[in-house]
Amino acid sequence: MNFCPNCGAGIERRVPAGDHLPRFVCTGCGTVHYQNPKLIAGCVPDVDGRILLCRRAIEPRRGYWTVPAGFMENDETLQQAAARECWEEALARVEIGSPCAIVHVLHAHQVHVMFRARLAGPGFGVGVESLEVRVVTPGEIPWPEIAFPSVAFTLRRYLEDRAAGRDGLHFTTIDQRPGAG
Amino acid sequence: MNFCPNCGAGIERRVPAGDHLPRFVCTGCGTVHYQNPKLIAGCVPDVDGRILLCRRAIEPRRGYWTVPAGFMENDETLQQAAARECWEEALARVEIGSPCAIVHVLHAHQVHVMFRARLAGPGFGVGVESLEVRVVTPGEIPWPEIAFPSVAFTLRRYLEDRAAGRDGLHFTTIDQRPGAG
Repeated sequence: MNFCPNCGAGIERRVPAGDHLPRFVCTGCGTVHYQNPKLIAGCVPDVDGRILLCRRAIEPRRGYWTVPAGFMENDETLQQAAARECWEEALARVEIGSPCAIVHVLHAHQVHVMFRARLAGPGFGVGVESLEVRVVTPGEIPWPEIAFPSVAFTLRRYLEDRAAGRDGLHFTTIDQRPGAG
Repeated sequence: MNFCPNCGAGIERRVPAGDHLPRFVCTGCGTVHYQNPKLIAGCVPDVDGRILLCRRAIEPRRGYWTVPAGFMENDETLQQAAARECWEEALARVEIGSPCAIVHVLHAHQVHVMFRARLAGPGFGVGVESLEVRVVTPGEIPWPEIAFPSVAFTLRRYLEDRAAGRDGLHFTTIDQRPGAG
């Protein structure tokens, strides 16, 4: 952030009075511009015991496999966001079920919320953000080609829970910055 | 948003190519500035069966009662954010437990994630954002003076679950815009 989105003046980074962290503060109007984590919503779509996966057509991780997921928009719920992303990436209508994983992706300033889901209509296709969409058995999941650690974590917990006949909610934290963890 | 935080040029609101919603787009460098919901993390601190509540010293809803909660920062988990807010508002150290409620507050572009918690040390106090901090029995909760519907929802589900001996996770959506709901 270089310029104030409000008045256009320059930005400095400093700890405002009464605060405890450095913030982007406008040198003109004084507005403090807070930076907060963004929400990603996604789902694991079940298709008669198999799982729908998309091969990404966009960066980052173009060519790698993921479950449908993306940035939550204003004016929607997490469940609506997860279902919308599944429509956009795989042209598939889903019923969203229970939450399966919440992943803090510290290096990306993101929180990923991943739900169980079930295909609600007959068919799916290849959305504009996908190169390919496939329905795979657990044994066919291309683990080395999964796009993100949060997706691999979600798929593993999802399959473990399904095998155990339970619907858990699993938290984890991922930090890929140099020196982290 | 009036000016581009990146280059300082003017902003226009339009649907970018390939997108489906109007966005803030820079007329100079072309950057698309997405607006997404912000995360609020909070907890219901249990003190030997009673609940810790704070009376807000800041707007909005100054003078009304809430559980400790606030904006999640970058570089922390939801649980760390909930515990930090409890320290800042009530000078209380808590152990964060299971998630109790996730509330989509559509009119505020916020998602509130509220956890169960337990006081981890002896004592609490009045943080700078609070006018008063009290530990109350369920019967003493000042329902008409609870600051936000998301807090009332959380407290009701928390108490119902506690009475039933379960640890549920409850979703709801609140929209206070004219014409909503």
